[in-house]
Amino acid sequence: MTRTMRPEIDADRLWADIEALAAITDPDRPYTRRSFSARFLEGRDWLIRAFEAEGLACRIDAAGNLIGRLEGTEAAAADPGVLMTGSHSDTVPDGGRFDGIGGVLAGLAAIRAMRAAGYTPRHTIELVDFLAEEPSEWGLSCVGSRGMAGALGEKELALTGPGGETLADAIDRIGGNVAELKSARRDDITGFVELHIEQGPVLEAEGIALGVVTGIAGISRVKLAFEGEAGHAGTTLMSMRADASMALARFQLRMRDAAVAAAAAGRGHFVATIGVVNILPGGANVVPGRTEAIIDIRAEDTALMNEQVELYRQFGEAAAEMEGCRLKSFERISNVAPAACAPGLRAAISQAAGERQVSTRDLASGAGHDTVFLSQVAPAAMIFVPSRKGQSHCPEEWTDPAQMAQGATCLLDTLLLADKA
Amino acid sequence: MTRTMRPEIDADRLWADIEALAAITDPDRPYTRRSFSARFLEGRDWLIRAFEAEGLACRIDAAGNLIGRLEGTEAAAADPGVLMTGSHSDTVPDGGRFDGIGGVLAGLAAIRAMRAAGYTPRHTIELVDFLAEEPSEWGLSCVGSRGMAGALGEKELALTGPGGETLADAIDRIGGNVAELKSARRDDITGFVELHIEQGPVLEAEGIALGVVTGIAGISRVKLAFEGEAGHAGTTLMSMRADASMALARFQLRMRDAAVAAAAAGRGHFVATIGVVNILPGGANVVPGRTEAIIDIRAEDTALMNEQVELYRQFGEAAAEMEGCRLKSFERISNVAPAACAPGLRAAISQAAGERQVSTRDLASGAGHDTVFLSQVAPAAMIFVPSRKGQSHCPEEWTDPAQMAQGATCLLDTLLLADKA
Repeated sequence: MTRTMRPEIDADRLWADIEALAAITDPDRPYTRRSFSARFLEGRDWLIRAFEAEGLACRIDAAGNLIGRLEGTEAAAADPGVLMTGSHSDTVPDGGRFDGIGGVLAGLAAIRAMRAAGYTPRHTIELVDFLAEEPSEWGLSCVGSRGMAGALGEKELALTGPGGETLADAIDRIGGNVAELKSARRDDITGFVELHIEQGPVLEAEGIALGVVTGIAGISRVKLAFEGEAGHAGTTLMSMRADASMALARFQLRMRDAAVAAAAAGRGHFVATIGVVNILPGGANVVPGRTEAIIDIRAEDTALMNEQVELYRQFGEAAAEMEGCRLKSFERISNVAPAACAPGLRAAISQAAGERQVSTRDLASGAGHDTVFLSQVAPAAMIFVPSRKGQSHCPEEWTDPAQMAQGATCLLDTLLLADKA
Repeated sequence: MTRTMRPEIDADRLWADIEALAAITDPDRPYTRRSFSARFLEGRDWLIRAFEAEGLACRIDAAGNLIGRLEGTEAAAADPGVLMTGSHSDTVPDGGRFDGIGGVLAGLAAIRAMRAAGYTPRHTIELVDFLAEEPSEWGLSCVGSRGMAGALGEKELALTGPGGETLADAIDRIGGNVAELKSARRDDITGFVELHIEQGPVLEAEGIALGVVTGIAGISRVKLAFEGEAGHAGTTLMSMRADASMALARFQLRMRDAAVAAAAAGRGHFVATIGVVNILPGGANVVPGRTEAIIDIRAEDTALMNEQVELYRQFGEAAAEMEGCRLKSFERISNVAPAACAPGLRAAISQAAGERQVSTRDLASGAGHDTVFLSQVAPAAMIFVPSRKGQSHCPEEWTDPAQMAQGATCLLDTLLLADKA
């Protein structure tokens, strides 16, 4: 088919789509569409109709991903592989209107632009709504993209959610087919590009339009516990205390100082956070005898990650000793390796933005994404659009219409560049 | 009546009584006899039979206190006033076998010793099981002793417990008479002595048999909150954080250091504790945006208490500023004044111990006691017996039989000295 004009994003349609999906929310807690829920399936029904309106052939793969397929001109002949884009339509509780769904709808806008311009791609293009990217009530994130990477095993499928339903049964319930899970694993993808909101403050702070994601940080979680001696808050003399909360307080400040230094070390994105703390027994009139905390550590550089975790163990031992307590446990409870984005696709994103005089910067992703798993089976890359005040996972999550359109345009142009390659 | 021999505590009987009361416990969580419960009333029935077996005339006063009365020889004539002893038979959940009940049974042992020796006191002696000394499900402690001090007001009586029952109704239900509450208030007590376990480690650590309580520390509770900026743990750069948990950690360490100094300042008992901490929103992948904590501060010296609270407010402001956060609130949510023990009774306790070559030391009580309220209407004092490892409010709470007998002997001898005065 002859290319008659340059494909352009319909910014108003894209914004209308975002508003339409935002309206499909649990009414009492906008914006909530939890994976596996009736509300989620309602959103998917909307997506299927919208995908089909753009001529996409829709199916749910065995891992529960919604896939809309636009057949390429060379599909049957030389078969250059599938160009894939997409993200996810599920949300965290009280989540936002952009995280995930922005990438799905930008992909839809890109395909709409191609069709409106009469452009039929050489590669087959697939637009995906990955299943359950957010941590669901089954305790697992990136369910669908794991399935596409062959990373959904017995252990994950046996996880139980509300009412004791297994993840396997839940995937089947929403239209997947766990018995045929191997069919979801892909080896035919020539490139995957995901648009997503930054969920951080950097682009806005620096006034830059788009982020070219260099890689997605690895995530380790460490659970640690200090043990001291519980005692009556009125009768246990200050000089005789082994207050486990003081050991934790010492540890927190020292860990943070080390994390600040690690982040400034020029070894890529690094953050460490303690967001969960338990003080036990937890009575106002009891000296804490035990404290527990979870450290969330994210690093692009696995060596830096491991060095810091070891340092934190030493800090834990030292803080415990200074407070007459014991570091009772220090355990790495999870560890996901970092994922590097594909250099070719990163270059295409930069080129696409440059041709439109849109500013970009390289940026690591501190948050996990479906791209982590897609990068295990295909060249994969991400485009970030700015998040107002860096806010995400909350109703205030926001990206301006013009920013969304800029991102979708870059996604479109990147797909066009990749289609030529 | 002629005194035929020196009254002596029957240590075996006292220990058997302690074991008998310990057996009256919720079976699945020894040692539990919560005030106002059926189990508590079962314990009281046992006490009434035991009191009556020693010739005590029993009644429940309007505030729900069980009072056993031994008429003195001068009761009708010159009326020198009532000598009172006692403590409480209710426990915290999973509490111990000694806290409270040890004082009631030591008082019973003292009266038993007098009777066995043929000693009839000049003063009328009353042995009291005060109602609900421990914080009950109605959220109030020292219910019965408050009533005896005229300190049970409308506000307290309107508190609601399980099933919405008011405290007033609960007091009536267990045999009190709130309509006649004024009759519970006492102005006829010439001296009150309470034996109690120390609930702290000092006596054991120093190898001293008995504590002569100088006073009972005042208690203030302060609730404070820091507000920072919640953010995604993966995407919020270390350099851009306002982590409310770091402000709290800074505050905790600095408050503790000041409390250690205050405790060593020679201005009486002082302790400060943070036993309750909330980190919000409390997700492993979220930078804490808000932290809340409760400080429990105890001081014999009210000026020192007030100085420290003001210092902590300054520390809170400073910690918040250093972490880019705000001290959102800092509020004194409760304040109970300290109670000094009566010099005459303290001297009698020391003299009684000295005559038996039993070691004592002066000691402040960091824990609250019924003596706080009795001291508002009568000269009042306390004897402490050692607590193993300072443990209390737990099943491991322990005082040796010989230590209990030494304490009861001192209580007996103190009552005898007071009876002569």
